[in-house]
Amino acid sequence: MAASRANVIGTGLIGGSIGLALREQGWYVTGSDANAARAARAVELGALDAVGLDADATVTFIAVPVQAIPNAARQALETTTGYVTDVGSVKGSVLDAVDDPRFVGGHPMAGSEQDGIDGADADVFEGAVWVLTPTNTTDSDAFATVRSAVSSFGADVVALSPERHDALVAVVSHVPHLTAVTLMHLADERADEHRALLRLAAGGFRDMTRIAAGHPGIWPDICAENRTAIVDMLDRLIAGLGDMRDIVDKSDRAALLDMLERAHVARRNLPARIARPDELCEFRVPVQDRAGVLADVTTLAAELDVSIADLEIAHSSEGDRGVLILLVPADRMERFQGGLLARGYRPAVRTLE
Amino acid sequence: MAASRANVIGTGLIGGSIGLALREQGWYVTGSDANAARAARAVELGALDAVGLDADATVTFIAVPVQAIPNAARQALETTTGYVTDVGSVKGSVLDAVDDPRFVGGHPMAGSEQDGIDGADADVFEGAVWVLTPTNTTDSDAFATVRSAVSSFGADVVALSPERHDALVAVVSHVPHLTAVTLMHLADERADEHRALLRLAAGGFRDMTRIAAGHPGIWPDICAENRTAIVDMLDRLIAGLGDMRDIVDKSDRAALLDMLERAHVARRNLPARIARPDELCEFRVPVQDRAGVLADVTTLAAELDVSIADLEIAHSSEGDRGVLILLVPADRMERFQGGLLARGYRPAVRTLE
Repeated sequence: MAASRANVIGTGLIGGSIGLALREQGWYVTGSDANAARAARAVELGALDAVGLDADATVTFIAVPVQAIPNAARQALETTTGYVTDVGSVKGSVLDAVDDPRFVGGHPMAGSEQDGIDGADADVFEGAVWVLTPTNTTDSDAFATVRSAVSSFGADVVALSPERHDALVAVVSHVPHLTAVTLMHLADERADEHRALLRLAAGGFRDMTRIAAGHPGIWPDICAENRTAIVDMLDRLIAGLGDMRDIVDKSDRAALLDMLERAHVARRNLPARIARPDELCEFRVPVQDRAGVLADVTTLAAELDVSIADLEIAHSSEGDRGVLILLVPADRMERFQGGLLARGYRPAVRTLE
Repeated sequence: MAASRANVIGTGLIGGSIGLALREQGWYVTGSDANAARAARAVELGALDAVGLDADATVTFIAVPVQAIPNAARQALETTTGYVTDVGSVKGSVLDAVDDPRFVGGHPMAGSEQDGIDGADADVFEGAVWVLTPTNTTDSDAFATVRSAVSSFGADVVALSPERHDALVAVVSHVPHLTAVTLMHLADERADEHRALLRLAAGGFRDMTRIAAGHPGIWPDICAENRTAIVDMLDRLIAGLGDMRDIVDKSDRAALLDMLERAHVARRNLPARIARPDELCEFRVPVQDRAGVLADVTTLAAELDVSIADLEIAHSSEGDRGVLILLVPADRMERFQGGLLARGYRPAVRTLE
């Protein structure tokens, strides 16, 4: 995709970083912020070309707090002709509120401990996972355009359904955060008595509570928006700790060792970030040119651990048919082919030299 | 204290590191291991001068697994004339089992992810906290001798009662470890379905579960020995997470923000490791020259966050009186003086140039 014109609504740390990354790729970037001084600062820092709203922008990035996203997205859909995407860390409630073919839900999983525009950095997305959540109504060109833009920032795009995204971030982000907070309280109760002794806290405790030092401000929104998944996951954690408590209380060595061994193996096998593949292969998948197909194929790829290095849609001139062209790692060719065939697609595959 | 002769019983990672550190300080070190090949390897690596047991050693370090400590310690007390100390990560059960004036409980809080003698390193104790647990029956010279030896390794010695040590490590080490294991299981249950998605696990989750990758083998013993404190602390954690669950479920933003703010402040205020003080002052404390006084004064120092840079005991020639000489940071002079006066001591204090 040739770089073009974009809007960035909300120029905090993430919005500012998106502005910088877009401009590095040659985009002309217009933007705004509820706080006018912050938008002006974004221009100063080179994250925006101009303050305002570009009605003809190809893509508008919504980078406002999660509860403000639906209104901002709907407004962008009404006042611009292009596609709209967001960066909120909860997706189900956003997609429920903004059901529009031109809207693509997104969530860059990049650090955000610092929350000021002054911390903005175009490189923050390099190698980070950027989740997109296409649905049955998402326009395939909208998805492909947003995907191409964020890929150009160096991010690894993973397509998930909004519901799966929310359950997953509850496990890997939200509940760990609330657990770190609770562990910190436990130690702190004791500290009222004898704070000095917390010096004894070794690396493990420091590692486990580090995220509790982050800014509290964003969490009430996140917890409200992802309430169901978080409560479900906290219930599971509490049940798991209850089992652990009983095992320790009964000094059941075999059961304890089994739990520790399984966690040991699971932690060692925790997948690393996506490695850039050496060799790629090309899938050409004839599809009905309608919304939903793209979500189906891209979320299937994510579930099969097949990373999509590039994606393009060739529309047929005759209307309702098209070809989805995907580049994926050559060592995942068989797996992806199997998955596509199982879902009824008829892909043509070739390796690239 | 002039370096002298020592035994090291158990030449794994910690025992081997102690051997190396002792020999660096000029000690002659004899040692043994249940696994004869491991003791031979310790000699090869320079952690021991000789294999065996030196009956005239000044100090014997017991560095065997925690459940084997009582027998090993009693045997060392019977077969040597010197003092005996251990490095077990639980102290109450050890001190209950080994009630001898010549025995000083100890716990170096240094990393032990690697457990082989080949990972032994004299520098591992530099700047680490080394807890000693004097009791009412501990001989003051035994304490001073062990304290001086481990201080010479660069460790910061903190004196705690065995019970307080065990409650504290339950909070800052044992329960965090079991929590990391439980969190890892939670993520792994989901991974059976779609392991690939664990790639999304960002730094926070990786930090929080890192310790779950450690060797499971040591934990059944630790959990058995520190069962009471661990179960109590797990109950508190489960209750805390239950409160958190209810707050999220009710979307009680004010309560959530309050919990997050308090954890944020507590984590930011987590005391760093003990800094080497620029200026010291000297306390000369006349004491009844009997066991118990030393435990009282040194554990008081730890609870007041007064680190003891040096400690010496001057025995009176007339029998039952002596003087405890302590060097502490000058900026803690008033605090320590107040604490000692409150406990009925009459210290003489002077600053050192």
